[in-house]
Amino acid sequence: MLSHIPNKNDIAGAANLIKPYINKTPVLTSSTFNQLYTASVFFKCENFQKVGAFKSRGAVHAILNLSEEKRKTGVGTHSSGNHAQALARAAKLFEIPAYIVMPENSPKVKIEAVEAYGGKITFCKPTLEARESTLHDIIEKTGITEIHPYDNYDIIAGQATAAMELLQEVPDLDMILCPVGGGGLLSGSALSSAHFSRNTEVIACEPDGANDAYKSFHAGYIIPSQKPDTIADGLLTSLGKRNFPIIQKHVSEIVTVHDESIIQAMKWVFERMKIVIEPSSAVPIAAIMAEKVAVSGKKVGVIISGGNVDLKKLPF
Amino acid sequence: MLSHIPNKNDIAGAANLIKPYINKTPVLTSSTFNQLYTASVFFKCENFQKVGAFKSRGAVHAILNLSEEKRKTGVGTHSSGNHAQALARAAKLFEIPAYIVMPENSPKVKIEAVEAYGGKITFCKPTLEARESTLHDIIEKTGITEIHPYDNYDIIAGQATAAMELLQEVPDLDMILCPVGGGGLLSGSALSSAHFSRNTEVIACEPDGANDAYKSFHAGYIIPSQKPDTIADGLLTSLGKRNFPIIQKHVSEIVTVHDESIIQAMKWVFERMKIVIEPSSAVPIAAIMAEKVAVSGKKVGVIISGGNVDLKKLPF
Repeated sequence: MLSHIPNKNDIAGAANLIKPYINKTPVLTSSTFNQLYTASVFFKCENFQKVGAFKSRGAVHAILNLSEEKRKTGVGTHSSGNHAQALARAAKLFEIPAYIVMPENSPKVKIEAVEAYGGKITFCKPTLEARESTLHDIIEKTGITEIHPYDNYDIIAGQATAAMELLQEVPDLDMILCPVGGGGLLSGSALSSAHFSRNTEVIACEPDGANDAYKSFHAGYIIPSQKPDTIADGLLTSLGKRNFPIIQKHVSEIVTVHDESIIQAMKWVFERMKIVIEPSSAVPIAAIMAEKVAVSGKKVGVIISGGNVDLKKLPF
Repeated sequence: MLSHIPNKNDIAGAANLIKPYINKTPVLTSSTFNQLYTASVFFKCENFQKVGAFKSRGAVHAILNLSEEKRKTGVGTHSSGNHAQALARAAKLFEIPAYIVMPENSPKVKIEAVEAYGGKITFCKPTLEARESTLHDIIEKTGITEIHPYDNYDIIAGQATAAMELLQEVPDLDMILCPVGGGGLLSGSALSSAHFSRNTEVIACEPDGANDAYKSFHAGYIIPSQKPDTIADGLLTSLGKRNFPIIQKHVSEIVTVHDESIIQAMKWVFERMKIVIEPSSAVPIAAIMAEKVAVSGKKVGVIISGGNVDLKKLPF
């Protein structure tokens, strides 16, 4: 288990460790998009990742970096989102138990997905306090290791491998755009940019309705979200304490976009790029389309974070 | 203009000619799919092609293979589908007129797409006779060249380049599965398999509700569709007279699938592979999932023909 900010070796090591268990996701381009914005944009498609999101990288890495003994005992987390599925799947790969605390109002499809990967679900009231105390009780009883979705250096090193792969495939990017929720993907991408590229800025993209990262970044201390409200359901969480300092040091800028822009961007991607993305993934694309980031003449990486969306409830 | 069945040089030449104007589409794999069917399946993603379908290949090739003079005069077709868009786009690339005859009940979104590419639309009654006679009148008046959507050797050579690319990227496929409507993609794929591979069978996949290719294949002569009815709206047409003999000679088998299987396969691809496909593209995948083709232990290519689908009316 890493107890320090992941360095270059930690990230390269994570990439090697997780390689047999994750997809090397493709990088797609759209000449229409490039023409519209007079830029060269490279989309790193983590929607094609195992369980449909980059979260598989960190989850596999966190388990592989446990001692043999801790691994045997098992892991746990509280999550209703992609991290829950990713951790349950990773635990199944290594045949260890995964205890997942989920709010009792979690969507059925997400519960079933965790069950399908053999996760041991405990339901709780839909509050952060209930989630934390329920998980705490399980840890007391079983001795499992908590794998936090983002406030965890092994997770950060794992998520960093997406941007690392992108920079290996497309060197000399002028910038990488990345959505931000708790900051796992963002802090990892920022570290990879710092370690594996010379002059690649990392710009975070956040929904207006959950702009705690923007506020925290400018205040210089963590300001948690108050009743976040956005269609980008993967970005509702507040920045983690391990993620924030990395972001402060290595991220150039945080821009915010309206939900309407997010929906428009999502629609464009479905219709023109023919890929399925979740609203969170559309946030950086919305930032380009709404001209919140100046990309003209630039070589730009965009991390498409995931593709888990209810196709019966597309917002467009 | 080709006046003979495309040979190896014709297809390789077509690939060279059209290269600057089309996408070299990616080949995707799904380890989950491979595990489910104990096969190695390679999806050639023509849904990522220009205008969202393989039709761009043939349309660009047909125009490039015209004499300078004929090209200047312009081209025309009757179509309400992907070929109309593909031809309008190809004509726009070379700044020549494209006359598109469309049934007056064509979906608004398809009319707008043709207009966006600068196609000159003439509406007609929604019958094959009206479409043919309207186009005939335009040809009489303007001297343009008709570019038939499939019953045309330049189109066949162009469509053949998709399977050629697939075989170059993934040699030694045991089989290629391909949807069949008019037979442009199928006859092209069959020729490419014959010319660019040693032992790759081509198997055609067709909806039960439009099984004219199946019937024709077994009768030994063309039996046109009678009131075809299937969700795979790209496969309603009957086999072309230039396509049929190629199919007879080079295709091993034609299998048919129910619409329910097509819808299930389409849903699986959206949910698990995270790509947007139209119902016609789901037909070969349905053939695997419904065990109409035995793929276990085989190396299989699947041509995903296109991704133009009304996202407001997904059938699942």
